[in-house]
Amino acid sequence: MRTTVQFYITYFLAILLSVLCMIFVIYWNATWRGGFAWNGSTLQFNWHPVLMVIGLIVLYGNAVILYRIPVTWQGSKLPWKLLHAGLTFLAFIFAVIGLVAVFDNHNANRLSNVYCLHSWVGICTVSLFAGQWLLGLATFLFPWTPLELRQLAKPLHVWLGTSVFVMSLISSISGINEKLFFVLSGNSTEKYGDQPAEAIFGNALGVLIFIFGIIVLRILFNHSWQRPDGHPSEVTEPLLNGRR
Amino acid sequence: MRTTVQFYITYFLAILLSVLCMIFVIYWNATWRGGFAWNGSTLQFNWHPVLMVIGLIVLYGNAVILYRIPVTWQGSKLPWKLLHAGLTFLAFIFAVIGLVAVFDNHNANRLSNVYCLHSWVGICTVSLFAGQWLLGLATFLFPWTPLELRQLAKPLHVWLGTSVFVMSLISSISGINEKLFFVLSGNSTEKYGDQPAEAIFGNALGVLIFIFGIIVLRILFNHSWQRPDGHPSEVTEPLLNGRR
Repeated sequence: MRTTVQFYITYFLAILLSVLCMIFVIYWNATWRGGFAWNGSTLQFNWHPVLMVIGLIVLYGNAVILYRIPVTWQGSKLPWKLLHAGLTFLAFIFAVIGLVAVFDNHNANRLSNVYCLHSWVGICTVSLFAGQWLLGLATFLFPWTPLELRQLAKPLHVWLGTSVFVMSLISSISGINEKLFFVLSGNSTEKYGDQPAEAIFGNALGVLIFIFGIIVLRILFNHSWQRPDGHPSEVTEPLLNGRR
Repeated sequence: MRTTVQFYITYFLAILLSVLCMIFVIYWNATWRGGFAWNGSTLQFNWHPVLMVIGLIVLYGNAVILYRIPVTWQGSKLPWKLLHAGLTFLAFIFAVIGLVAVFDNHNANRLSNVYCLHSWVGICTVSLFAGQWLLGLATFLFPWTPLELRQLAKPLHVWLGTSVFVMSLISSISGINEKLFFVLSGNSTEKYGDQPAEAIFGNALGVLIFIFGIIVLRILFNHSWQRPDGHPSEVTEPLLNGRR
């Protein structure tokens, strides 16, 4: 019971940080960056941080800790597998639209694409995510995958899934850092080094993201919060496999 | 035996990437950035990426996977504990000198300190590292710590240790990205967006760092590569406790 209470306190913290990350990234772009549009302007670019943080950090982070919630241990695992696949699919769609927002904005302004380290890491993250999602679908949801392969693939799925999350943290924080340097320099009346309100607010968003990341790792790492081994639906239940 | 062979292949990859990360960060700063000095100039700044990558990525990363090497499972754990503490202490010293290099350079040029997100995350990383090291020393090496506390603290130590590593990855890659934007813009004849050799080399360093990070996570996550539970020296052996 004590460990369940500890889990829910930590999980509540993860949910709270999820909400704060979303509020901070939307508020930053809606106010200091002028809001949103879909016309190739910098207002289209503003969708990029919002969609990436909501998709790759918040939705993805919550999807990877889903099986740690004790309520998911009761009965069939299939609905939770579908929710895990659905949440990560939604996260992927957010990431793709977030990438389109940047490419459109760069192309409309004849700016280079995918040249900085942030963009290289970001593209690697989304590519690994795509491969991981398809392999996950083929391995854990399709009914014709042999059980042995499923058992073999599970630790790899957990490792690659965590790696995609860590790479998302790197991509998001390097991107926010880069954006703040871009907009708080040159012709701007406010300079990053003078710590105007936007600088502190943007940095705080980055700090919220890495605290959320550490909390998600805490939930993943705690063995006593893992779905107990040997549950009948643990690895034997594919999609479309009748009532089980 | 098969899992041991797999471990050593993965471990060899980690060592190879460690060496490549060190070569790349030194070569980048020694050639394109003009080399090293300790006089407040940008040549002093050049020590910063070198010391941070060697300390927080290479030394620290190798320290956290030390107990996964099967040879460390034989006999007393104490020498390996001391090596783990020694490697992480060395990593911490590298990080502190790496910070001094930046503060000296900023102060000599009247530049602001600790204003960008990279620096906020970096300071949090080194602070958490310091706390984690001292708690690790008090909990796992000092002889007067009760065994119960030691057992309770171990999963927390693993989680916080991994978190420091993930934060080091975020700090390093956001820092390299920032540095490349600084030096390949403005008055520079070479622009980041045109992908000169330095841009590609610097980005490649970042990619090597996150591949190393993913390999370290692979080694940490694989249960079959963990020191077997119940080894007599697993949690019962403090420093200065006679022959055991």
